[in-house]
Amino acid sequence: MHRVKTYSEYLETIEMSNARAARSKTSHYNQKREVIQVTVLRLGHRLVRDTRMSTHAALVSRALGARAIIMCGAEEDDTIDSVRRVNERWGGDFQISHSNSWREAIRDWKGLKVHLTMYGEPIDRAIPKIKQRLKKMKAKEILLIIGAEKVPKEVYSMVDYNVAVGSQPHSEVAALALFLDRIYEGKELQSHDLLPKKSLNVYERRKLMYERLNNINEKTPRTKKNEDAFSLANFWSSVGG
Amino acid sequence: MHRVKTYSEYLETIEMSNARAARSKTSHYNQKREVIQVTVLRLGHRLVRDTRMSTHAALVSRALGARAIIMCGAEEDDTIDSVRRVNERWGGDFQISHSNSWREAIRDWKGLKVHLTMYGEPIDRAIPKIKQRLKKMKAKEILLIIGAEKVPKEVYSMVDYNVAVGSQPHSEVAALALFLDRIYEGKELQSHDLLPKKSLNVYERRKLMYERLNNINEKTPRTKKNEDAFSLANFWSSVGG
Repeated sequence: MHRVKTYSEYLETIEMSNARAARSKTSHYNQKREVIQVTVLRLGHRLVRDTRMSTHAALVSRALGARAIIMCGAEEDDTIDSVRRVNERWGGDFQISHSNSWREAIRDWKGLKVHLTMYGEPIDRAIPKIKQRLKKMKAKEILLIIGAEKVPKEVYSMVDYNVAVGSQPHSEVAALALFLDRIYEGKELQSHDLLPKKSLNVYERRKLMYERLNNINEKTPRTKKNEDAFSLANFWSSVGG
Repeated sequence: MHRVKTYSEYLETIEMSNARAARSKTSHYNQKREVIQVTVLRLGHRLVRDTRMSTHAALVSRALGARAIIMCGAEEDDTIDSVRRVNERWGGDFQISHSNSWREAIRDWKGLKVHLTMYGEPIDRAIPKIKQRLKKMKAKEILLIIGAEKVPKEVYSMVDYNVAVGSQPHSEVAALALFLDRIYEGKELQSHDLLPKKSLNVYERRKLMYERLNNINEKTPRTKKNEDAFSLANFWSSVGG
């Protein structure tokens, strides 16, 4: 089992990759530079009580296009293990790392800092401003800060934007999902970047699952009634290709 | 403390309210009939382990425009209490109820049944179909089913739509948020329907909080630098009016 990267090691890797992108003339790296990169910072993780919420936050970050999550607070293996297992089975190189101090983590971040909080600016007003700011930045790196329960007041003034997702108390996991969905304009849901490394083909499995659910197979005649099931089975097998 | 409504009592109340709406000629009820109503069904809640996830699911349902959540599985007071406290402090009449049998709950539902699952149809393809179906229905009632861990196979064939939010494993809370956001076209985040009943004015508190954070008050000169803080403080005070 690998050791988890510390926050400063993580910062080094993204600086290196951004520097490489800046030097590079190839379209691959230039394309990468155009993409908004989100790193999630999870504040105040407490053992046991928060384990499942933290795991959900990590998986949502990964599934909706963020590149990494940094856990502040108690160091804890369950979330790290879950992320590793999902990476292995479902692909991608989403990273998880740990920082002992949220204060240093926010202070040392060089890109844009966005904090999700009920007391912020409504998301529909904030997103256009954030995008405007990112346009002028070479590396489009966002540190997206989400809290557990009480967030220290200091955080509000350390960031560039305090953003409110709705005007009612709900869930940091939901707020995170909606922010990523808005910043990526819904495209993250259509993305198939995260393809599994292992021989196991997830899309094939899905296709089979769908065929079983609908009692269709290759010999079933295509009628109007089962057209939908066919089209869906074909959809999953086409993105799997 | 009030008793929690059973599922069949809940079904009665919505049938009565829909019947009243159908008879009524007043714009208030007709308007209500035009609105898509979502009831969330949470499958397989297990004690302790799921309490916080269930509370988050309930608060997300409430904050993003659903009318109620039905908990299946273990009966449990923490989530119910949380929802009550939030209703009291933050307004609205979001309901929480309990059912002993998910099978009966799904079977007895008269409106549309939608199940959120990784193995479903991609959300961007499903939402237009669902809206098309709802157009033809008198009462636009959706039962939105979300699972905890393993969902019984039977569920897939009992519903009208199996919908996948993204093509990667993440979180039922995030999937719920993104589905509600898509079905309400983002309008739920701008809504201020849920105004607190109590004298405590949340928007005033927010305005003060924002002024304090930005060190502005009524006597501060409006310069370009603090224009944003002013505009935000005014925003919160205007929606509070």
